[in-house]
Amino acid sequence: MKINGTPYRAIWPTSDAVEIIDQTQLPHEFVTLRLNTMRDAERAIKDMQVRGAPLIGVTGAYGVALAMRADVSDAALAEACSVLLAARPTAVNLRWGVEKMRELLASLPQDEREAAAWAEAARIADEDVAINETIGRHGYEIIDEIHQRKNAAVNILTHCNAGWLATVDWGTALAPIYTAFDAGIPLHVWVDETRPRNQGASLTAWELGQHGVPHTVIVDNAGGHLMQHGMVDMAIVGCDRVTARGDVCNKIGTYLKALAAHDNGVPFYVALPTPTIDWTLQDGVKEIPIEERAEEEVTHIAGLCGDGQVRRVQVTPKGSHAANYGFDVTPARLVTGLITERGVVKADAQAMQVLK
Amino acid sequence: MKINGTPYRAIWPTSDAVEIIDQTQLPHEFVTLRLNTMRDAERAIKDMQVRGAPLIGVTGAYGVALAMRADVSDAALAEACSVLLAARPTAVNLRWGVEKMRELLASLPQDEREAAAWAEAARIADEDVAINETIGRHGYEIIDEIHQRKNAAVNILTHCNAGWLATVDWGTALAPIYTAFDAGIPLHVWVDETRPRNQGASLTAWELGQHGVPHTVIVDNAGGHLMQHGMVDMAIVGCDRVTARGDVCNKIGTYLKALAAHDNGVPFYVALPTPTIDWTLQDGVKEIPIEERAEEEVTHIAGLCGDGQVRRVQVTPKGSHAANYGFDVTPARLVTGLITERGVVKADAQAMQVLK
Repeated sequence: MKINGTPYRAIWPTSDAVEIIDQTQLPHEFVTLRLNTMRDAERAIKDMQVRGAPLIGVTGAYGVALAMRADVSDAALAEACSVLLAARPTAVNLRWGVEKMRELLASLPQDEREAAAWAEAARIADEDVAINETIGRHGYEIIDEIHQRKNAAVNILTHCNAGWLATVDWGTALAPIYTAFDAGIPLHVWVDETRPRNQGASLTAWELGQHGVPHTVIVDNAGGHLMQHGMVDMAIVGCDRVTARGDVCNKIGTYLKALAAHDNGVPFYVALPTPTIDWTLQDGVKEIPIEERAEEEVTHIAGLCGDGQVRRVQVTPKGSHAANYGFDVTPARLVTGLITERGVVKADAQAMQVLK
Repeated sequence: MKINGTPYRAIWPTSDAVEIIDQTQLPHEFVTLRLNTMRDAERAIKDMQVRGAPLIGVTGAYGVALAMRADVSDAALAEACSVLLAARPTAVNLRWGVEKMRELLASLPQDEREAAAWAEAARIADEDVAINETIGRHGYEIIDEIHQRKNAAVNILTHCNAGWLATVDWGTALAPIYTAFDAGIPLHVWVDETRPRNQGASLTAWELGQHGVPHTVIVDNAGGHLMQHGMVDMAIVGCDRVTARGDVCNKIGTYLKALAAHDNGVPFYVALPTPTIDWTLQDGVKEIPIEERAEEEVTHIAGLCGDGQVRRVQVTPKGSHAANYGFDVTPARLVTGLITERGVVKADAQAMQVLK
C-alpha cells in the first residue's frame, strides 16, 4: 500500500540487505531500517520494530537468508534458526517461517543455499501478499454490494490493526477496504483507538491516512452509539485464532463491538487466512487461554509531547493496579461471516467444512 | 468519604470561606483550594476544578453565599446569579442551585440575607448527601444479597465516575459500594478507564483507593471478557438522564457494557436521584441529543511524566481526525433496575410510576 503516494511493503529485500519500516516510531515518524545481518533481523523482531504474525514470520525467513549470505555452513544455519526462534518464542508464524527455511536449506548442497534462501524468503513473502490480496477481493464484494444498495459512502468500523503493517502488504481486515477504495467505492472507516496499546489510533489511522482512505479515530467506547444511529454499515476485524465452530479470538474489545453490531443489525465480518483456524478447538470462550500482559500497558500511555519528544505518561493514581487481558473471544453466533482467501463462509462448524 | 484516612466532602464551608478539592490535579496530586469570593467560585466551575452535576450546583449555591458576604444588595445578588450561571451555561443543576438561592434571598430583607445564604447553601449540600446516602442504602441490599448467595467477595464493574467527587459525598453509583464496604462486605471494583476523559482511571480509581476499597483499573475493552468468565457479579453506573420508560443516557460506552451484562446474565444497575428522570422523554436513543465534544480529548491524553510533570501527549497521527461523542443511550431492556433514593425500581414506564 502507499505511503505518501509511494507503494511500499512492510518488508523488502534490496541488493545486499533487507529493509523494514521501524513500527515503533509510528505514527509520529516514518523511519525505514536496514537489516544487514541475521542479528539485525533478530533485534527487529525482539524490539517489535516489526509486529503482526505474518510479518514476523517473513522477517524470520529473511533473517535466515541474511545468515546464509555470511556463512552457508550447517552450523550457521542451525545457529540462525535457533537465534531467530528465540527472538519471540511464542510466535507461531515465526516458527513456521524459520522451519520452512531450515527444511529447504538443510536439504541443499552448501553452494546452492544462499540463492535458494533469498528465493524462498521472497516466495514466502509473495505468498502472504497473494493470500491477503485474495481476502481483499472476496471482502470487496461485500462492500460493493452495500454500496450498490445504499448508493452513498460505506461506513466501516474496524478494531485494532489488521492492516498491511501487520502483514507484508494489504493486511487482512483492511484488505477489503483497500481493494474497495482502490476500485473507487466511496467509503469511510471508523478506527477504534484499541486501548491499551492503541494500535488503531496509531497504526490503522496512519496506514489509512497514508493511503488516502477517509477515516475517523474514535474511542473504543463509541462504536455502540454509532451503530445505534445508523452510522456504521459493516464492521470488519482481523483475528488471532478461530475455532472449528467459528468462535473468534481477537484483540480485547472485539466481543463488545460484535454485541453492538448484532443488537443493531450491522453485519460483523472477520477476515483471516485459513491457517488461522484451529480445527482442534470448539468453544473459544472455554478453550482459548487469554494472555495477561503487563499492567504498565494500561497505566501508562506513550505519545508525542508538545516538545516533539515521544513520552510516556501515567494515567492512573499511584497505588491503583490494573489488569490487562490481551484478547477476548467473540462467539460465532455474533459473526456474520468469515472472509478468507477461499471465499466468504458462515461462522459455523458445518459451513466451515469447505475450508478444511 | 475518606482521603488517606480522613473524612472529606467534595466542598465544605470554613469560618470565612469555602473549600474544594482541585479536581484538575487528581489523581496525581491532592490539592484543596480556598474560594474567598463569588468570582473564585465562578472560576472553580469554569475551570472544572469542581465537576459532576450535583457538585457544580452546590458550588453555585455557595458562590451566591460568598457574594452575600461581600454585598447583600439586590444588585449584588443579581450580578452573582448571572455570573455564576454563565460559568457553565448548560449545567442544569447549576441553574437549579443558583435559582433556589435567588428565590429565597430576594424574598428576604437585606440584613437577613448573608446568614440565610450560608444556611441555604449548607442545606442544599446536606440534601444532596442525604439523597446519595439513601441511594447507597438501597443499593447495599443488592450487594448484600449477592454476597450472601455467593459467600465470597462481590465483583462490581463501574464506568466513568459517579462517585463522591461528582457530588458532595457518597456519589450515586459508588454510594452502594461505599455503604457495602463500610458494612464489611468483601468486594472488589473493576474500574473502566472511561476514555476519552479517563474519569474512571483517574477519579474513580483515586476515590476508591483513598477510601481503601479494593479495585483494579481496566481498559474499556475488557469488561465483556470479564463478564464471559464470571468475573463480574454486577455492574453499577450513574447517569445523566433517564427517560420515562427507563432508557438511560450516560457516559459513552455504557451501552456496550450493558449489552455484555445482558449477554452474560450479569445484573446491570443504574443509580440516580429521581430528579434525573426526564418525564417528557420516552425513546432515549431517538430523543436525546448526544453532545459532540472537542476531538483533542480523543487525540491527546494527559498524564504524569517521568519527570514529575503532568504533560499532554498526542496518540494519533498528524492529519487523522477524531470524533468525540460524549454519551450514549442504553435501552431500558438492558437495565436490571434503577437504584434511587426512593427504592430500587424496574426500568419500565409502569414500574417507574411510583417515582413520579
